[in-house]
Amino acid sequence: MTASSDLLSRLAERLGEKHVLTAPTDIAPHLVEWRGLFRGSALAVVRPADTDEVAFVVAACAEAGIAIVAQGGNTGLVGGGVPWGGIVLSLGRLSRIRAVDPLSATITVEAGALLAEVQAAADAQGMLFPLSLPSEGSCTIGGNLATNAGGTGVLAYGNMRDLVLGLEVVLADGRVWNGLSALRKDNAGYDLKHLFVGSEGTLGIITASVLKLYPKPSSRAVGFVGLSSPRTALALFEALRRAAGHDLTAFEYIPRYGLDIVLRHRPALPRPLTGDHAAYALVEMSTTRPGADALGDLEVALAAAIENGFVEDAVICASEAQNLNLWSLRENLSDVQSLEGGSIKHDVSVPLARIADFLDAAIAACEAEMPGLRVCAFGHFGDGNIHFNLSQPVGMEKAAFLKQWGRFNRIVHDIVHGMGGSIAAEHGIGLIKRDELVRYGDPVGLDLMRRLKAALDPHDLLNPGKIVASSPNPPPALPRE
Amino acid sequence: MTASSDLLSRLAERLGEKHVLTAPTDIAPHLVEWRGLFRGSALAVVRPADTDEVAFVVAACAEAGIAIVAQGGNTGLVGGGVPWGGIVLSLGRLSRIRAVDPLSATITVEAGALLAEVQAAADAQGMLFPLSLPSEGSCTIGGNLATNAGGTGVLAYGNMRDLVLGLEVVLADGRVWNGLSALRKDNAGYDLKHLFVGSEGTLGIITASVLKLYPKPSSRAVGFVGLSSPRTALALFEALRRAAGHDLTAFEYIPRYGLDIVLRHRPALPRPLTGDHAAYALVEMSTTRPGADALGDLEVALAAAIENGFVEDAVICASEAQNLNLWSLRENLSDVQSLEGGSIKHDVSVPLARIADFLDAAIAACEAEMPGLRVCAFGHFGDGNIHFNLSQPVGMEKAAFLKQWGRFNRIVHDIVHGMGGSIAAEHGIGLIKRDELVRYGDPVGLDLMRRLKAALDPHDLLNPGKIVASSPNPPPALPRE
Repeated sequence: MTASSDLLSRLAERLGEKHVLTAPTDIAPHLVEWRGLFRGSALAVVRPADTDEVAFVVAACAEAGIAIVAQGGNTGLVGGGVPWGGIVLSLGRLSRIRAVDPLSATITVEAGALLAEVQAAADAQGMLFPLSLPSEGSCTIGGNLATNAGGTGVLAYGNMRDLVLGLEVVLADGRVWNGLSALRKDNAGYDLKHLFVGSEGTLGIITASVLKLYPKPSSRAVGFVGLSSPRTALALFEALRRAAGHDLTAFEYIPRYGLDIVLRHRPALPRPLTGDHAAYALVEMSTTRPGADALGDLEVALAAAIENGFVEDAVICASEAQNLNLWSLRENLSDVQSLEGGSIKHDVSVPLARIADFLDAAIAACEAEMPGLRVCAFGHFGDGNIHFNLSQPVGMEKAAFLKQWGRFNRIVHDIVHGMGGSIAAEHGIGLIKRDELVRYGDPVGLDLMRRLKAALDPHDLLNPGKIVASSPNPPPALPRE
Repeated sequence: MTASSDLLSRLAERLGEKHVLTAPTDIAPHLVEWRGLFRGSALAVVRPADTDEVAFVVAACAEAGIAIVAQGGNTGLVGGGVPWGGIVLSLGRLSRIRAVDPLSATITVEAGALLAEVQAAADAQGMLFPLSLPSEGSCTIGGNLATNAGGTGVLAYGNMRDLVLGLEVVLADGRVWNGLSALRKDNAGYDLKHLFVGSEGTLGIITASVLKLYPKPSSRAVGFVGLSSPRTALALFEALRRAAGHDLTAFEYIPRYGLDIVLRHRPALPRPLTGDHAAYALVEMSTTRPGADALGDLEVALAAAIENGFVEDAVICASEAQNLNLWSLRENLSDVQSLEGGSIKHDVSVPLARIADFLDAAIAACEAEMPGLRVCAFGHFGDGNIHFNLSQPVGMEKAAFLKQWGRFNRIVHDIVHGMGGSIAAEHGIGLIKRDELVRYGDPVGLDLMRRLKAALDPHDLLNPGKIVASSPNPPPALPRE
């Protein structure tokens, strides 16, 4: 009996045969990154029922020297969940919402709970869990934590890292750290939870968490604004931040090309403004204050911005149905790009004061590099975070275009790095940016990361080859097509 | 020449003689915790001028095997800055504000800058740096970071940890990690800054940071509320949070005994309410919205709370001068306790829903333990954080009372621990709670902390004996009197 078949027998004995999947058709969905950029391999997919079973699996794998990749909804965008041999540990059965406490404003949930379920559980208690992502119906809280997910709620409420109070984590040797604190203030030693948040399953496996809730906004107002340039978008953002403070709950940027392709491929969505503009912003104000008038506040602020010349045109919705339509324009932007052929994608951030400089410089550089290239640079403008995506020129071979991924990475990432920005703003490193991290990361910082990895996972069993690859034979990092 | 005199010569050569202090009178202020609970010893106090000099000092000490304790304003409350041999590294000369960027809403400051100077630099640009502490005129940003300082701004803006975007840190071997990021979103590998924030100088020496700024509130309203019990305080807090959301910027709790001793020892401060109440809350709403009416909002919210029976009496200030007077009542509370004899202090937190349970149980247990004991439990109620202080019975020997420190620790900390709380909410561990951390901490979590310490400071040179003591001969942890 080999070490691996012995391991699988032990796991089947504890978890039950039906929770140790080995048939190729059963495990296939767990091997592939959903956009098809990477396809990995695994001995088995195991589905423990609770924290104790996760601890058992990890301890057994540690004993056998077999690697483990934790998976939630497998909706990641950087190949972080792709296995390269070893075991896929699916957290899907750890899906309980253990407690909702509206008074403490906390919710305690297991790693496999869907983001949408957590939002709904909070909502049922009159509270808000503010993380919001296009994949919220299929991504899991464990994945959100492991990747420090971002999305459209970050401007007012922060990243996933900012929404977590406590964690329960299975360590590389199978021990369980019980850090399920519901405290707003705790300085009892080093902050361990921040080590695991955003570590993409390479330092430990998160099994449960205590998350922050907020009072649910009682009213919101959504507007769609036509702008002449990234620079006027920045001026508008600054004016709205001054006017609204924490009530400014979204500021999303959409270039003209982005709106054009959404309207082309989603004909049911109404065109928000009659004329064309170089750029657009979707802005939202919302508030919990009973007597507040979000609509009136947004009207006053946008009227002032038109007066000051920042804004060419604007519309404010009169109904929640219209609000949802405007949000659909933004939310469809990622999907419709794939209908325009190949896309080369970057997920970058810069200090807010540089965001117009960045857009101007990077768009000019990429357009100069390849005639006919269509830049679709959009996203979380107020966080300094742009999804700097490139649609292939019309008529070009898709595969030939995608072979240029590295070339455009260099152009865009050099500009970002020169402005003190990040090449991995919200999607993480995974496989796809592992070599870019080595290229641009501070060498002392990279050494610290490797030391942390060695201290917490000395045998490199947790998601090996990701973030800071220490495997002797790491999986390849370039996207496949 | 001994190793230590050789080291001091090298340091004097690089820093200049006058920045390597060895005369007993020069170094004395750096050896003592300001409340006199601990007195340490040191070979010298060195005062580097910049990050390069800090790196030189640390590398030279590492080579000589000599320990280093970093000090800012030396205003800590847990003995974390007390040296036990080795070198005190004072960051006072690294006091530059390197940059203020109102558009990115960031400020870049060196570790030795005073908190009050940083607040003023932000204010001069129309921005707010929200950390607020009684010691803000003498504490430094480096110390605030090293201890993850809290204070009265936490409710709306978070702890120091939540206010930092990037750090520059000198590691135990003298290398410099340049993590001075000004980004709101960055998932490029493990989050290193959170390792150092709150680590009390045991993992690295913070030399500079990029901090978040916020739009400056344009109006605020402050109220003082008379309450019948901790439980009605909790009901009031929940009602105000629902009504005001992020506009609720302070909710501080003061027991009747606390108000009594402030008014006794600070006769210039006016009595805010005519009658006596079991407890009081100082509440503040503030906002950046130009047309907002913080005063009107607070009036409506408090009127509803009186209607609902949560509140016995309330006053709302009509002027900023009155606002400052009310805040003085709260800010004088720590100081006046020392005029009532010895105090045994606890800095604890519980999940918010348990805070009334905690106060009821801990007050009853302590009063039962010692007749005449005067409980002064006050503080950041809205964060679940109470400074649970005990004033000695009138007429008791102070020294005899303070000998009971461990006995009351056990009573209070057992109750806190049983409610899922923390024995070190905002002041940290340092020396004074090192043994309590071992007693109450999760064993797996403590092992993780020790592994982090070993990974980042393998020779135990940075502030040895603090937090997780790994020195063979750690300094004593009990307070002296």
